[in-house]
Amino acid sequence: MTVIERLSLNQWTTRRWSVREAVDGCVRHDIPAIGLWRESVAEHGLTATAKLVTDAGLRVSSLCRGGFLTGPGLALDDNRAAIDEAAALGAACLVLVVGGLPGMAPGGAREAGFSRDVAAARARVAEALALLAPYAAERGVRLALEPLHPMYCADRAVLSTLAQALDLAEPYPAEQVGVVVDTFHLWWDPEVLTQIERAGERIASYQVSDFLVPLPADTLLGRGMLGDGVIDFGPLTSAVDAAGYRGDIEIEIFNADIWAADPDEVLATMKRRFATQIR
Amino acid sequence: MTVIERLSLNQWTTRRWSVREAVDGCVRHDIPAIGLWRESVAEHGLTATAKLVTDAGLRVSSLCRGGFLTGPGLALDDNRAAIDEAAALGAACLVLVVGGLPGMAPGGAREAGFSRDVAAARARVAEALALLAPYAAERGVRLALEPLHPMYCADRAVLSTLAQALDLAEPYPAEQVGVVVDTFHLWWDPEVLTQIERAGERIASYQVSDFLVPLPADTLLGRGMLGDGVIDFGPLTSAVDAAGYRGDIEIEIFNADIWAADPDEVLATMKRRFATQIR
Repeated sequence: MTVIERLSLNQWTTRRWSVREAVDGCVRHDIPAIGLWRESVAEHGLTATAKLVTDAGLRVSSLCRGGFLTGPGLALDDNRAAIDEAAALGAACLVLVVGGLPGMAPGGAREAGFSRDVAAARARVAEALALLAPYAAERGVRLALEPLHPMYCADRAVLSTLAQALDLAEPYPAEQVGVVVDTFHLWWDPEVLTQIERAGERIASYQVSDFLVPLPADTLLGRGMLGDGVIDFGPLTSAVDAAGYRGDIEIEIFNADIWAADPDEVLATMKRRFATQIR
Repeated sequence: MTVIERLSLNQWTTRRWSVREAVDGCVRHDIPAIGLWRESVAEHGLTATAKLVTDAGLRVSSLCRGGFLTGPGLALDDNRAAIDEAAALGAACLVLVVGGLPGMAPGGAREAGFSRDVAAARARVAEALALLAPYAAERGVRLALEPLHPMYCADRAVLSTLAQALDLAEPYPAEQVGVVVDTFHLWWDPEVLTQIERAGERIASYQVSDFLVPLPADTLLGRGMLGDGVIDFGPLTSAVDAAGYRGDIEIEIFNADIWAADPDEVLATMKRRFATQIR
């Protein structure tokens, strides 16, 4: 399979498109896979989305996202629902963004029970995983732990490095709990290449976007089209290849300018940049 | 020595104060040490500054900063000058911010020779250190490698973790090349407590500020007064204590609101928060 045959559109890259529009866009641009987001799937309907992607001949490279496990109830019900949805969609994995400090909402608002105890938050993630992994395994769904850039540690993910994700995943079979390698989040890590090698068959998803400098005022939107930022993708892709990963490569870009642009142009640019930048 | 007897004002916390004003402020508020910045020292004059701090009875906990070693010339001349200045001031260490990707200025402007090769940039740091460490040793100056938060990897420091700093320092005696433990930069690292233990007598400086969420539009100014952000200082200070560090504890805060406030009020708040938050 050539690398372009492994390209996947993560739906958030063309955020204003509905599921139907994104699926049609993939077909129109000859993109063979899609990463879906739960909110959009819910709008279109779960069964209808499963039929839509199957009829279009697309692979579902991931479902985004479960997680936020660090709150008081570990968000178990919501995560079980996410697992059921991933199963219905035949998604290659369910991406887990594990959550930040207890009582801190994404964006930093403090709620009841806010705590600065990051070690305790990490322990909660392990605890929740022990409850969710068997549920996912029974439904044939692979969980994918996503380490996020350390700047999101407090409000989105106390999981910041691939090493940490692999330590968490280790007690489970690789087909049950994998990890996401996301270039934006991990490029800076001096350990990233050795940890990708260590990950091997644990790699459940390879997500790609560039890291912009300076970051925009909303740091969540600091991702760029491949080539616009500071990441050298070649060594990362080579390491992921060498680790044995043969799955889809998702382009996932949170960026206000890209969201404002014509999605068809975004897809055309994305394909062109992917072909020249990914290796 | 009580913890308040180890408090140091890093000059950048009261950035609009000159060296003389900062020294007077420390005396007025009974703060026994100061971390100086080269720009301010140059304005006042090197010899005059050395006399000023000595006469005031202040310790110089650090000189900020040398580094930016990743450019084509490794910035050797400027760093030798910084070492000479640290010697003249009797500073406990010269802080090194090692620099980002070659050809990328702080803030992200790309200059001639810009390169995304982060591994090569890291190799240059090791190369420059091999040239500077003996020069510093001859002058009795201790270099202090400062890992910066990964969000500054591209434009300020390809050194992002304490583990990486310790690996770089390892070939040299601890009194020649140490490391800076800065809470703002390192709090998120799942390895930070074990690496502080590993650091032991390599700890040359303990710098303290809080991590604000959300970050401001200029992420460089995301530091907060102790207690305003998300960091639990207790475990970090305990680890630094247990590692054997008995030096000064510098409050270094880059923050637009704090810079706009009355510096005397900043010092009063700083002392109060330090006493209640540091452990």
